[in-house]
Amino acid sequence: MKEMIKDWKHIFKLDPDRQMTDDTLEAVCLSGSDAIMIGGSSGITYENTVDLLSRVRRYELPCVQEVSDLTAVVPGFDLYMIPMVLNTDHSRWITGLHQAAIEEYGYMIPWELLVPEGYIVLNPDSTVAKLTEANTDLEESSVTAYAQVADKLMNLPIVYVEYSGAFGDMAIVKEARQAISNAQLFYGGGICDEVTAREAAGVSDTIIVGNILYRDLKAALSTVSAVKSE
Amino acid sequence: MKEMIKDWKHIFKLDPDRQMTDDTLEAVCLSGSDAIMIGGSSGITYENTVDLLSRVRRYELPCVQEVSDLTAVVPGFDLYMIPMVLNTDHSRWITGLHQAAIEEYGYMIPWELLVPEGYIVLNPDSTVAKLTEANTDLEESSVTAYAQVADKLMNLPIVYVEYSGAFGDMAIVKEARQAISNAQLFYGGGICDEVTAREAAGVSDTIIVGNILYRDLKAALSTVSAVKSE
Repeated sequence: MKEMIKDWKHIFKLDPDRQMTDDTLEAVCLSGSDAIMIGGSSGITYENTVDLLSRVRRYELPCVQEVSDLTAVVPGFDLYMIPMVLNTDHSRWITGLHQAAIEEYGYMIPWELLVPEGYIVLNPDSTVAKLTEANTDLEESSVTAYAQVADKLMNLPIVYVEYSGAFGDMAIVKEARQAISNAQLFYGGGICDEVTAREAAGVSDTIIVGNILYRDLKAALSTVSAVKSE
Repeated sequence: MKEMIKDWKHIFKLDPDRQMTDDTLEAVCLSGSDAIMIGGSSGITYENTVDLLSRVRRYELPCVQEVSDLTAVVPGFDLYMIPMVLNTDHSRWITGLHQAAIEEYGYMIPWELLVPEGYIVLNPDSTVAKLTEANTDLEESSVTAYAQVADKLMNLPIVYVEYSGAFGDMAIVKEARQAISNAQLFYGGGICDEVTAREAAGVSDTIIVGNILYRDLKAALSTVSAVKSE
């Protein structure tokens, strides 16, 4: 089951806390994107998540949840992506909350569906950076070293370079990807058209496209063909 | 190379900061123990480590370094064990120091020889607990959850339950071991004779015997046969 992510080049990330019409959702789900990821940094509830999942389930593409709040975990997703934020001083974002969650719900956790993501949070203005007090002011070599911790020490299947809200420094992403051996590099942040999609896809394994969906659907959909035609 | 640890049931841990005569070292190295681990929490230098390594190298058993101080890393060990302390609030002990080390020395790191250990530090009076400000006051279920973070999320090859200086609660160790699937459970702390060795070996995959070597050699050597005769 987890192996399916290896083929994913493009993911649309939907925020349950934001509105999307049925027509838009249909266009997104039939766009040719490889998967839908449902999640966000704030306002995520069980209700809005289950509602969005049931709407996405009308379509055939895989749908995964990125878990940020335990009370919003909904059964029935294909996979559960588990962020572990690496560039923070507070261990709760790396392993602490995970330990607490496992202690409370361990007996009902579908381990075979869990995909841990080694997050490197790089936009200081993003909600997740503020929440985790991430050390975002990092040199290329620092980001690369975090990627190697995730890949070579923690054996995480995904290294997620996250610029949420801004288009990142592609040189940083490129170097990080070159330094890892087994993990898949996810890039997210500021992809808003064909050009940025192609640029990000050139230095990562998988691009995640989110915010632009809520601002310019046509531009968002163009990111799929940009990647797929590579 | 890393696979060799899977067969290890007994390890003697030697502290480079403590004296050991040639006769004692010979008895330790010919005891039938599976490996020598060199390391400690304080007073470890390049000089005392290289000295001890060269003395152990006269014998055939594998010799690994447990890395606690970068300035004391010595080339020529069979493997390098990399502690990642899980039950602390400070991310530097989980991934932070590792990231800094990789950033500085990444180009010369022999990745294929690195074995990360997910440490759960449980004796509040131990040097390592004080240094890392470990949260040692944990229920069985909390320790188990940390073990599962190491095993199932971080995919670490070793979960190391560490009571350094005291003999731990074997019920805790047993539950942690039963909850993990792939990782090997190392137990260390307070093993001082055949009885404690056998008890610890009954609930773990590998026991680590250290301090008693410096107090009662005969008792220390008896821990090998206690494990091997199982």
